Amino acid sequence: MAVTTPLGFSDCKKNATYLGRHVLAEFFECDSNVLNNPKLIERYMTDAALECGATIVEKCFHMFSPYGVSGVIIISESHFAIHTWPELGYAAVDLFTCGEKCDPRVAYDFLKKCFGSKNASFSQLNRGILDGKDLSVEQTPFYISAQN
Amino acid sequence: MAVTTPLGFSDCKKNATYLGRHVLAEFFECDSNVLNNPKLIERYMTDAALECGATIVEKCFHMFSPYGVSGVIIISESHFAIHTWPELGYAAVDLFTCGEKCDPRVAYDFLKKCFGSKNASFSQLNRGILDGKDLSVEQTPFYISAQN
Repeated sequence: MAVTTPLGFSDCKKNATYLGRHVLAEFFECDSNVLNNPKLIERYMTDAALECGATIVEKCFHMFSPYGVSGVIIISESHFAIHTWPELGYAAVDLFTCGEKCDPRVAYDFLKKCFGSKNASFSQLNRGILDGKDLSVEQTPFYISAQN
Repeated sequence: MAVTTPLGFSDCKKNATYLGRHVLAEFFECDSNVLNNPKLIERYMTDAALECGATIVEKCFHMFSPYGVSGVIIISESHFAIHTWPELGYAAVDLFTCGEKCDPRVAYDFLKKCFGSKNASFSQLNRGILDGKDLSVEQTPFYISAQN
């Protein structure tokens, strides 16, 4: 059994309004050689996690044949995931973090440079919206809280 | 190197308008004993993937101490991910699938029953929007295409 402390409810500030921030990012016009290199993809995703202050718990990456990489990093703060389409110069990335320590937008900016992406966009959704009075989870659907 | 065929661009129907569907689901009022059981969580997520026709490639699951489970399944069609907050009876789940074979909403319905969730909501976003003429990826931000 793991001894890593989870970023559970008790770690959230009492005035937090949600448990986590989920940034969904699309990277366009990337360097296809990077997108098709599983070692580089794993390295960049790992470095992005460390860059934004995350604590890495587990990693799994997979190279498809003939091309394309998928990978996930489980962090104490939730997870990062990537799927690449080198033939299109496109990567779909998820940066889901909980708590205040780890800013997914730092990882987004870092990866944009690593992939040589000429254009990128993100949308941020808040997950686990909290009721301010009793700090239970509000049962509401998502909304996009930020977008570029 | 893996020999698993990726669900790359060539697998998409020529009249497809996006590469993948990403369902973000929130499960409320779940059975906390289930949410804090890593073996059950792994089993249910695996079964959900199989139920909706996905091809499982890699899995990693992690139990936090004293409570909470995080896990990811990489599938040929992208990935499923889960993070649980047993103390709140809440689970945040991602069901990202590409191509037509695999319906993430089937997995969503399946998991709602497995978790004993009394209420749940999802939002679906399309990822990798394709330009209809030349089938390149359109460089546009997300929009929520379906929600309950």
